[in-house]
Amino acid sequence: MPVPMSEEEKVFKDPVHGYIYVHQPLIWDLINTREMQRLRRIRQLGTTYVAYPGGDHSRFSHSLGVYEVIRQILAAFDRNAYPWDEDDNLLAMAAGLLHDVGHGPFSHAVEKVVGLRHERWSEAIILDAATEVHQVLEHHRPGFAQAVADVIAKRHPHRLVVSLVSGQLDADRLDYLMRDSVATGVDYGKFDLARIIRIMEPVDDRIVVRQSGLRTLEAYLLARYFMYWQVYFHPVSRSAEVVLRSILQRARDLAGLGEEPPFPHPALASLLRETVGLADYLRLDDAVFLNAFNVWQDAADPVLRDLCRRFLDRRLLDYREYPEFRPMWWQRVLRAADASGFDSRYYCAIDETGTVYYDYYLGGGNRQGEAIWLWDRNTRSLVETSEVSSPVRTIAAETRVARRVYFPREIGEQVD
Amino acid sequence: MPVPMSEEEKVFKDPVHGYIYVHQPLIWDLINTREMQRLRRIRQLGTTYVAYPGGDHSRFSHSLGVYEVIRQILAAFDRNAYPWDEDDNLLAMAAGLLHDVGHGPFSHAVEKVVGLRHERWSEAIILDAATEVHQVLEHHRPGFAQAVADVIAKRHPHRLVVSLVSGQLDADRLDYLMRDSVATGVDYGKFDLARIIRIMEPVDDRIVVRQSGLRTLEAYLLARYFMYWQVYFHPVSRSAEVVLRSILQRARDLAGLGEEPPFPHPALASLLRETVGLADYLRLDDAVFLNAFNVWQDAADPVLRDLCRRFLDRRLLDYREYPEFRPMWWQRVLRAADASGFDSRYYCAIDETGTVYYDYYLGGGNRQGEAIWLWDRNTRSLVETSEVSSPVRTIAAETRVARRVYFPREIGEQVD
Amino acid sequence: MPVPMSEEEKVFKDPVHGYIYVHQPLIWDLINTREMQRLRRIRQLGTTYVAYPGGDHSRFSHSLGVYEVIRQILAAFDRNAYPWDEDDNLLAMAAGLLHDVGHGPFSHAVEKVVGLRHERWSEAIILDAATEVHQVLEHHRPGFAQAVADVIAKRHPHRLVVSLVSGQLDADRLDYLMRDSVATGVDYGKFDLARIIRIMEPVDDRIVVRQSGLRTLEAYLLARYFMYWQVYFHPVSRSAEVVLRSILQRARDLAGLGEEPPFPHPALASLLRETVGLADYLRLDDAVFLNAFNVWQDAADPVLRDLCRRFLDRRLLDYREYPEFRPMWWQRVLRAADASGFDSRYYCAIDETGTVYYDYYLGGGNRQGEAIWLWDRNTRSLVETSEVSSPVRTIAAETRVARRVYFPREIGEQVD
Amino acid sequence: MPVPMSEEEKVFKDPVHGYIYVHQPLIWDLINTREMQRLRRIRQLGTTYVAYPGGDHSRFSHSLGVYEVIRQILAAFDRNAYPWDEDDNLLAMAAGLLHDVGHGPFSHAVEKVVGLRHERWSEAIILDAATEVHQVLEHHRPGFAQAVADVIAKRHPHRLVVSLVSGQLDADRLDYLMRDSVATGVDYGKFDLARIIRIMEPVDDRIVVRQSGLRTLEAYLLARYFMYWQVYFHPVSRSAEVVLRSILQRARDLAGLGEEPPFPHPALASLLRETVGLADYLRLDDAVFLNAFNVWQDAADPVLRDLCRRFLDRRLLDYREYPEFRPMWWQRVLRAADASGFDSRYYCAIDETGTVYYDYYLGGGNRQGEAIWLWDRNTRSLVETSEVSSPVRTIAAETRVARRVYFPREIGEQVD
Repeated sequence: MPVPMSEEEKVFKDPVHGYIYVHQPLIWDLINTREMQRLRRIRQLGTTYVAYPGGDHSRFSHSLGVYEVIRQILAAFDRNAYPWDEDDNLLAMAAGLLHDVGHGPFSHAVEKVVGLRHERWSEAIILDAATEVHQVLEHHRPGFAQAVADVIAKRHPHRLVVSLVSGQLDADRLDYLMRDSVATGVDYGKFDLARIIRIMEPVDDRIVVRQSGLRTLEAYLLARYFMYWQVYFHPVSRSAEVVLRSILQRARDLAGLGEEPPFPHPALASLLRETVGLADYLRLDDAVFLNAFNVWQDAADPVLRDLCRRFLDRRLLDYREYPEFRPMWWQRVLRAADASGFDSRYYCAIDETGTVYYDYYLGGGNRQGEAIWLWDRNTRSLVETSEVSSPVRTIAAETRVARRVYFPREIGEQVD
Repeated sequence: MPVPMSEEEKVFKDPVHGYIYVHQPLIWDLINTREMQRLRRIRQLGTTYVAYPGGDHSRFSHSLGVYEVIRQILAAFDRNAYPWDEDDNLLAMAAGLLHDVGHGPFSHAVEKVVGLRHERWSEAIILDAATEVHQVLEHHRPGFAQAVADVIAKRHPHRLVVSLVSGQLDADRLDYLMRDSVATGVDYGKFDLARIIRIMEPVDDRIVVRQSGLRTLEAYLLARYFMYWQVYFHPVSRSAEVVLRSILQRARDLAGLGEEPPFPHPALASLLRETVGLADYLRLDDAVFLNAFNVWQDAADPVLRDLCRRFLDRRLLDYREYPEFRPMWWQRVLRAADASGFDSRYYCAIDETGTVYYDYYLGGGNRQGEAIWLWDRNTRSLVETSEVSSPVRTIAAETRVARRVYFPREIGEQVD
Repeated sequence: MPVPMSEEEKVFKDPVHGYIYVHQPLIWDLINTREMQRLRRIRQLGTTYVAYPGGDHSRFSHSLGVYEVIRQILAAFDRNAYPWDEDDNLLAMAAGLLHDVGHGPFSHAVEKVVGLRHERWSEAIILDAATEVHQVLEHHRPGFAQAVADVIAKRHPHRLVVSLVSGQLDADRLDYLMRDSVATGVDYGKFDLARIIRIMEPVDDRIVVRQSGLRTLEAYLLARYFMYWQVYFHPVSRSAEVVLRSILQRARDLAGLGEEPPFPHPALASLLRETVGLADYLRLDDAVFLNAFNVWQDAADPVLRDLCRRFLDRRLLDYREYPEFRPMWWQRVLRAADASGFDSRYYCAIDETGTVYYDYYLGGGNRQGEAIWLWDRNTRSLVETSEVSSPVRTIAAETRVARRVYFPREIGEQVD
Repeated sequence: MPVPMSEEEKVFKDPVHGYIYVHQPLIWDLINTREMQRLRRIRQLGTTYVAYPGGDHSRFSHSLGVYEVIRQILAAFDRNAYPWDEDDNLLAMAAGLLHDVGHGPFSHAVEKVVGLRHERWSEAIILDAATEVHQVLEHHRPGFAQAVADVIAKRHPHRLVVSLVSGQLDADRLDYLMRDSVATGVDYGKFDLARIIRIMEPVDDRIVVRQSGLRTLEAYLLARYFMYWQVYFHPVSRSAEVVLRSILQRARDLAGLGEEPPFPHPALASLLRETVGLADYLRLDDAVFLNAFNVWQDAADPVLRDLCRRFLDRRLLDYREYPEFRPMWWQRVLRAADASGFDSRYYCAIDETGTVYYDYYLGGGNRQGEAIWLWDRNTRSLVETSEVSSPVRTIAAETRVARRVYFPREIGEQVD
């Protein structure tokens, strides 16, 4: 970066953590790679900005936040003289900073249509010799890129470092709950981050939580529960994602028919043709998508044209809660749509809880591998959280599926 | 909007005001027009997101905020039984909501290159029979569109309504200072909005401030001072704007030479050719620009190509503070750039305080038309704020010009 | 009040609500009565300031807060044109403001020792012709004092007004959760007050909650759960209350033995002799108690002397969690204390969850009278909250009793 | 403290800093001395709680806050490898924690009447062998008590440590501005504490501020300006202090006449007789004063009786702003009071800006010894802040004296 931020300690002002402190040149150099800068142009929450006008924050600010949370956790470990090898600090911080570097625009929706997972792209970006990220990592120490990739892929032998980055109580979740909450203005996602950090302790190869902090941990897990329902699974945001998926699906289907719309960016074309390589992938950002939808408002194909206008003008699909699946009724919706001239392949969809990436707690029953463990210092024993906390047990056990059926408002009367 | 927000009172969650309340169908309908929805895709602060990772908030959220501040002011007027005609409420609220509807992407930079002012576009959008905004306004009452346009253009005879929307203490500033402060995480922009609203009072054809609120008013004016220096005139954000202007300038110059780059959106072509009409203008958003810069990273022209990469990868121009203008040194910078292969028309620039749209206080001296007046209820007399407040007098009188010279880092040594 | 707050609308600055607005002279006059001003000198949370250094806020600020919450609820009812008689506004606001006027210093502890409940004092203060509160109320309208007292005692026929002041979702709880949370710095007590108010609706003779607001309601009920465990039942605060009770008990027992300590305020003497009348009661505040403990640090009686020093110097009693009652162990604690010279009547105590006034949710099972009901506008039917919310069902059903045994640290080794 | 806060790192929850971290046993032991615990019962802002219902916070929480700010500054020095001897850390932290330990209840008012300054008591508490504070300090290292006392008295040769505790940019002010602002709910006192700490740097024997942080420093100095006018010099709070001084004065005068009222605490008697020793002084707290005023509501002397009732019932003195001193008018006020039966020695007072302990900035002109210096790293030169900042120059030069005349409301008409 040609313009130094200031003559002092490197920092970023941040609405969640106040400041993000950068002390190591490696971290500073990683932040300034073009692959990381790209994340400034990708919204953290995809289509959520359609439901919450404040939800415009980027994956870049979240990535800085994950790094900062790891930095704070490591400082607490150091302060308490916990067993920890300081050489692993940079590994954990770099992995935290880079864990989302492979995200593309609206990635959960795109992954559904195109099939490539962002984790694979993260790995490619870190390991491909052509990226700046790779060069910075290898300049630090040959082999460091592979180590960072291994942490992110959860196959690194250092389980503690892995669990700081990916686990039920990882820096990723700790940052995004707070950040999404601050940006949208929804209060439910806030919890006592400083205390969560203080009660974490590395024991053998796990990060555990001291039993004295049970209430704080409960509050964190309930924050996940509330953010899930108020933000991540918000019906309007989900409606926008349904429309976005249909746009991509239609564009791809048209290409299959030889009626491909014009692609205002070549990388988008290769994405939908499933020929996208790393260089192209790194060109994709929210603007590439939104500009395409903008251009396609005049597309020859009436379905594509209409869906793009709906998306940009926020004339989304209507919905009904649909807790129990009733095939007959669903068939009726599809028929009503088709009969009214709305191709049901693109205008009707079922959206279920399970399709949203987030969960609030796993660990009970046969998911113990992902549990959060409480540590009793006196007895030096571990207990799984949901065993001693009734609120956690409740949300862990919640099996109720939320299911919504989306369809054009125009057929509302025929649907009920 | 096919998806109702909820069955209750219409609201938007907002990080500044908590909630934005909408009670009138007219306001609700205006918000849902495609011209207003477009503002969701235009950043409030242009290139500031490059300096402050949280500065991604949109003109849409600001527009809702201006409406909400006006709504709160009018509620206070009503509560205190101030002389005010309730029929004017909708006029003031609609004008507040729409006052920025003509903004395009990165509009201050674009206006410099292309020359069309956003105020003109606002007027066109409100008055042109083809827009949804116009139709909603006229559906409310024939002639209402003209009235709203007149308020925004400050030519409406109802001076009180005009000053709520545009003045030294208008809802526009009251919202953006708070909002930009919250989004960037910079604390200096905060002031006591609830009390500012409480001390405002309509007296004759002016909104004045009760003298008892002087300290609160001072704090508000100083917030403007601090935000100016910490955010609006931030050197990195300004550097990004310098590069953005050069990109647009270069693209236009190339077109003049018959070497026009490909335009991935037709509206951008007509903008730079200065043939843009309203329909095209309404297609422009941040994504159209960012996608073009993205595509132009592979442009045939090396200057355009390099500038676009610098912008997207945040390898901006370096700068020196330059308080006194020294023509010899400036010539040296230009020559050094050209000699090193950086076309100085695009790689060097002087950026002055005056080029930034914002000011902190006018009113002293011969600018009394824009002053804020204090109202002494006992003596029923008005006094201009800077006459009784030494901090306000100080910042009103501050004549120091900040001036920076931008140039490529590569010639840094030759410059000093 | 001889010093007017300002020339504008009457307000109080408040750390929870921003401002508290007073529009009616009746409310202003009630606030300025000596009985209400007395609440400035009584801490809202009794001994909690010993555990949380910020927990010094007064019952006065809480009383203003309850009034403000009711004012906001009534404004929302008005805005939404709910069926509500505006004549009842003053009744509800006055009752909210006065509902705690009968509280004395450390009242939960004192009530345990002395036996008089604060509700009785509230009623006496409102109905006794000698109080300023009574005079202000009757000046408003003859019979108004009785009406206000009836609301506070829950026997007024207007059930809606009663439930605004006392119920599972009353203004009292809505304010104190937020206020105690802000003052102590504990985040868990915060919830979305603005939205809670928006989802409340009067239906027949109940305040119900619209079903669309279920998640917000859950967050509020969970805030109660967390505040209970983190603040209200904090072991150090409870330890201080145990010591305070022992001090009062010892002073009374000494009086019974004719060895009464000096009483540095006559009202304290009459309180402990159970001869206290209204005039004396209204003289009691935290200072009367703390000054007495201060003086008694030099009392002739060694038990009283030691307990007072422990209380003021925060050398409190130690404790063990004691989930299951084991009479043998409890006897061992008592014997150990007595054998070590600590009179177990004053130095040992069992403190159980049930002894704390607060609860987080009642309503399931046979407590439906106190339930919170959800209102489905479409079907126009009511459902009890815990029936549809698993987190609420969980905390409503939580039967785990927390029980702690307190004893002098000096016998710690003999206890384990 | 018999009840450990928790098994983890020692912390206090705090509404300003989130948490206050205690890592050294010395600090923990000092906090738990009876002399420090006494500060829990003394309000930080004396009579301000009468004007701001939230202003009940104690000197104890402020003292913890000063310690925490010093801890954070030292951590920043360490992080940036500034020249600093770590052995001085404990000295600075202990001095910060203890700097206010000599404060008594309502100390600014009491010092005016009785004449003993709290600084002298702080020194006595630290040096007297009978106090727990002294014993803890000497147990750490013989001679440490003297070193701490020397720092607080500004005579310690280590100027850097002294200036952390007492100076224009000391931890004391940094904490109290934030804390008083949070507690009262007045926003003006907030500034960017994290950045202030980051721009501080020890250069030779001074703490200076890096020039890059000028705007942040300006915001901090302006926060002092606003808090002065909105909180510290609030007319209602000052009115309460005027009455409190008159009460003490009257009680003392009565004693001189042999008509001493009963003293419900012996230490108060010795204070007013000016025979108070350290042991007695340490018994004084807000409760001792408030209980005495409470008892004196029934005093034989009608002046004492009336003043105490006015104080407790908040029927304070009225006032007029009185910018220019006019002896004739002042004489008229005195005569009017006396003629109406209000002894003007107790019922009338002039209160001037200068009587309030706080200032916003000294350093210009001949006060350079107390200036804040800006540090230019490039030129390695220092410049005094008001030389380069026009807002700071303005408030430093503000010579306007605020002067108010207080008198009984009953003579209001005769006064105008």
